[in-house]
Amino acid sequence: MQRTHYSRDITPAMNGSTVTVNGWVHEIRDFGGLAFLILRDREGLVQVTMPKKKVSKEIVDTVKGLSRESVVSVTGDVKAMEKAPNGYELIPTALEVLSRADAPLPLDPTGKVPAELDTRLDSRFMDLRSPEVTAVFYVRANMIKAIRDYLSSQGCLEIASPKIVATATEGGTELFPISYFEREAFLNQSPQLYKQMMMAGGMDRVYEIGPIFRAEEHATRKHLNEATSIDVELSFATDEDAMRLLENTIAYAYAYVKEHCQAQLKVLNVDLQVPKTPFRRLCYRDAIEIAKKDPECADIEYGDDLSTQAEHAVGQAIGEHYFIVNWPTNIRAFYTQPCENDPSICKAFDLMHPRMELSSGAQREYRYAELVKKMEEKGLSPESFKFYLDSFRYGMPPHAGWGLGAERLLQTMLNLNNIREAVLFPRDRVRLTP
Amino acid sequence: MQRTHYSRDITPAMNGSTVTVNGWVHEIRDFGGLAFLILRDREGLVQVTMPKKKVSKEIVDTVKGLSRESVVSVTGDVKAMEKAPNGYELIPTALEVLSRADAPLPLDPTGKVPAELDTRLDSRFMDLRSPEVTAVFYVRANMIKAIRDYLSSQGCLEIASPKIVATATEGGTELFPISYFEREAFLNQSPQLYKQMMMAGGMDRVYEIGPIFRAEEHATRKHLNEATSIDVELSFATDEDAMRLLENTIAYAYAYVKEHCQAQLKVLNVDLQVPKTPFRRLCYRDAIEIAKKDPECADIEYGDDLSTQAEHAVGQAIGEHYFIVNWPTNIRAFYTQPCENDPSICKAFDLMHPRMELSSGAQREYRYAELVKKMEEKGLSPESFKFYLDSFRYGMPPHAGWGLGAERLLQTMLNLNNIREAVLFPRDRVRLTP
Repeated sequence: MQRTHYSRDITPAMNGSTVTVNGWVHEIRDFGGLAFLILRDREGLVQVTMPKKKVSKEIVDTVKGLSRESVVSVTGDVKAMEKAPNGYELIPTALEVLSRADAPLPLDPTGKVPAELDTRLDSRFMDLRSPEVTAVFYVRANMIKAIRDYLSSQGCLEIASPKIVATATEGGTELFPISYFEREAFLNQSPQLYKQMMMAGGMDRVYEIGPIFRAEEHATRKHLNEATSIDVELSFATDEDAMRLLENTIAYAYAYVKEHCQAQLKVLNVDLQVPKTPFRRLCYRDAIEIAKKDPECADIEYGDDLSTQAEHAVGQAIGEHYFIVNWPTNIRAFYTQPCENDPSICKAFDLMHPRMELSSGAQREYRYAELVKKMEEKGLSPESFKFYLDSFRYGMPPHAGWGLGAERLLQTMLNLNNIREAVLFPRDRVRLTP
Repeated sequence: MQRTHYSRDITPAMNGSTVTVNGWVHEIRDFGGLAFLILRDREGLVQVTMPKKKVSKEIVDTVKGLSRESVVSVTGDVKAMEKAPNGYELIPTALEVLSRADAPLPLDPTGKVPAELDTRLDSRFMDLRSPEVTAVFYVRANMIKAIRDYLSSQGCLEIASPKIVATATEGGTELFPISYFEREAFLNQSPQLYKQMMMAGGMDRVYEIGPIFRAEEHATRKHLNEATSIDVELSFATDEDAMRLLENTIAYAYAYVKEHCQAQLKVLNVDLQVPKTPFRRLCYRDAIEIAKKDPECADIEYGDDLSTQAEHAVGQAIGEHYFIVNWPTNIRAFYTQPCENDPSICKAFDLMHPRMELSSGAQREYRYAELVKKMEEKGLSPESFKFYLDSFRYGMPPHAGWGLGAERLLQTMLNLNNIREAVLFPRDRVRLTP
């Protein structure tokens, strides 16, 4: 039977009209003369009410014989009913069983029987049926849509860079090797070099939202071996231009989700606050000072990367989104541009949520000779980066950009405990299926 | 200097106002008392006119010393001028050289000196500067945006499925192996199994636009080893529902590009015709009969796949987009549903452009027992697909979907000779850089 409505699209005002809904058997309650079938679709729940005097025996018997999580199509009359979910119930006139579910179920999709994340991920198809998990991926799709819409409105063209590459973005670590016919190749860790080449190509402002791959050995709650990166690169732009676009992108995504995912945020019990822009700019030097006050970070020094604990300490102190700026040049990537007045400091920035880093970016070194020098200082061979370096020799505009982790953005937006909850089918040190 | 306008955004009506444009030195012409600098940005060309009496000697001297393809920022006064590109010229009041180009250039970006595709791809950053190539990727970004917008308007949620997988979608051929820590894994050939699992997960209607990888040995003008696939899967849908969404998606993308990329289509000399829907449905059997009439395909028989030559013969006969339907079951993938009244025929379809196949799709086999049987008949081991098959056991809705090659769509839309022209950085049997 052809669906006419999602559960959410039926309203009490449609009292008396006939609709068809399709979905899963969420629950069956039988009180003798009255039975209920709670049907679930992507958008919510429908209460199908069966007073035995009004509904055909055939339908009632079929429902009684249904296993939980079977798939059915129900046609019925809408009846306004204050106590029912969404204020209406459905009195069925036809019911078709499309797929019967085996028992027992590998997971309880109502969430009444809690399961470990690993068990949930093993049966992700079933886990996705819980309204909370559906809500996470509904928000994810809307968050990504908001970001695309915003970047597109800001003149950024979407690109697709290769995932199979011959050279690592930042040297030889954390790479997954591929057998590419008779050669060795690698999975790309970042579109960095390619989006910079697009600047040399005159594409001016570009973005890409796609997979990146890191052979990170240790498993944490905020790392994935395959993640989605939101990458932006802007010609004729400074670090400050890039930061402004980034904070506005974040604020836009929050506002869009708040407006378009109200039902999902309610299911997740998230009271989303749109962060105020501009975000605070905190000097790296000051971040180190704040971190030092945490007894667990007492030995952190200027020139160190921020550990997870240090990020946490600073995040607690700031309490909202912020940028860390004025980084020491020698702990940032070779393609970062040093400051003119003090080359020991560079034009890099990290965007931080109080819980963790979300994004890294910088104004880039666009002068060929300087870039080659920086590369050599980092122990990288300019020879193996010739395809990239050449693009700086024939007219390269100044440019800046950033990479933003989609899963971390979603994790912090929805306050998810583990980053794996923000990915449909996570890949980590031990997990390769489903 | 901060850019105020792209070349395209300046109009003769702005006569007298001051603007700043950034871009590349496309051409310099010096006629003694009068010199011209043609500056190029992503959107087009600007004529910077320097009557020596009106422009400072410093600016004129700087321009004369510029190499082609250097990057400059020019501030000047707009002067309406019918004969100039876009009907205006710029009289410069300030000029800053941002990056000087080495000479000779690896390619001529004006296209006056034609180069082989391989040479162009070797210096893609330079090739991208030719207005024709810029136009191709401008259209690509808009085509993809149109498709996302349309699918989203049709209730499809965007998903991201893993690219690193343990099992091949359709068995063991044409796979790129990866070293995944201590295990062997593969690059995914298609999101097929994952988008079907999303149907079991209740996500109802999903789409993904992302990379797919095929270790295809032979190089042709329509194959890539890394391509972008536009994948859709729809619950409670038939093959006909999926075909309708597909033809409407194509028509929407054409119409959007026609409206939003007029300047680019003009540069490419493409007179885009929006295909009329519904597309013709041609029976596989009739396609074979048409192909047989071509002397080169005289020995094609019912049950054969359509060769490139056969596709071409049928495409010539039809002359517009069309579907091939009613395929023999045994030459389609195991997850295709056979027709109820004649199981030797199945609910698969291919969407064809007269030049080539663009998309493959089907109503899927959603009954667990039937699916296992089909898998065994194809010589695949149900054991290694357990993660996928399990999702059919606990309530799987009927569903249908398709995968559409983004590069082929662009190639046929813009009448590009080689599919490599539709990808920024193509990957093929021999090409792994840039």
